[in-house]
Amino acid sequence: MPGIGPKSAQRIAFHLLQHGRPAARQLSIALAEASEKVGYCTQCNNFSDTALCSICTNAKRDAALLCVVEHPPDVSAIEQSGDYWGLYFVLMGHLSPLDGIGPRDIGLDKLKQRLTQGEVREVILATGTTSEGEATAHFIREMTQGTPIRVSRIAFGVPLGGDLELVDSGTLALAITRRQQM
Amino acid sequence: MPGIGPKSAQRIAFHLLQHGRPAARQLSIALAEASEKVGYCTQCNNFSDTALCSICTNAKRDAALLCVVEHPPDVSAIEQSGDYWGLYFVLMGHLSPLDGIGPRDIGLDKLKQRLTQGEVREVILATGTTSEGEATAHFIREMTQGTPIRVSRIAFGVPLGGDLELVDSGTLALAITRRQQM
Repeated sequence: MPGIGPKSAQRIAFHLLQHGRPAARQLSIALAEASEKVGYCTQCNNFSDTALCSICTNAKRDAALLCVVEHPPDVSAIEQSGDYWGLYFVLMGHLSPLDGIGPRDIGLDKLKQRLTQGEVREVILATGTTSEGEATAHFIREMTQGTPIRVSRIAFGVPLGGDLELVDSGTLALAITRRQQM
Repeated sequence: MPGIGPKSAQRIAFHLLQHGRPAARQLSIALAEASEKVGYCTQCNNFSDTALCSICTNAKRDAALLCVVEHPPDVSAIEQSGDYWGLYFVLMGHLSPLDGIGPRDIGLDKLKQRLTQGEVREVILATGTTSEGEATAHFIREMTQGTPIRVSRIAFGVPLGGDLELVDSGTLALAITRRQQM
């Protein structure tokens, strides 16, 4: 499991057996329940234990804005940033032809269907800043051509609160090229 | 010294005494020479052992572009990014009224003088993304008002090549607010 190697796993197992049998039983039940009940939201494709997730059913959300992300943790990260009030679509991956991952494997046909329903006016592409994330973003942009939907990409550049010398040179070059008039 | 605590210092001292007396002597000479000879470039305020540094005297550089940074390592970082061919101005700090650091302490009068010489057409503000760096950038923008000089700020946002979930929430919020149409 991510972040837990063989040594940590052994330490956790012995700890549960020695001091935490009730906790182990609770964990066992929680895991069984989660494996059984957690499915996918039929609208945004995020994990959900109901047919529509709590974000998709929230009437206060702006249904005209759709933020496309690669993974469920990205939704959590954007939610925690506290500044976004639109809806999401979770691809559960990115295009990666070398690994045999094409548009169908990441639910892009489901996204296309969603975009033809006419409710979405702007798609914000928040796929990763890797080359696969970029390729996925470009694919989605192509997909929306000929429709009245605006497509935007999250801003790239220098992160907040740091020294310039700590930023990698690719980001720094981009931050200078994409400088904005004040 | 940055990155060297008492234990490392002791280890280095014993190493030089035991195995590296010639190296210690070379280091001693280099330090003495550097302390004596390295001054400031009269034009860009960066460290230099000549009156004008090698960047300021490079005729291939675009003198119409001036990138303002806080510290000498920022110049190195931008040079390593390999995408910038203008000149620099090094503030050697940032505005920080709470610490008693005002415009004169960071050479802003020298920068103003440089800007009135008419050669610079665009100032790129590459001060840090901290609140002090932002305040310094805004002060310089105010300074150029009423002149024909364009003022731009390096792009803020998500750095290249990473997962969104690793980006701090402030940067993520900004990356969504400053999203760019594709």
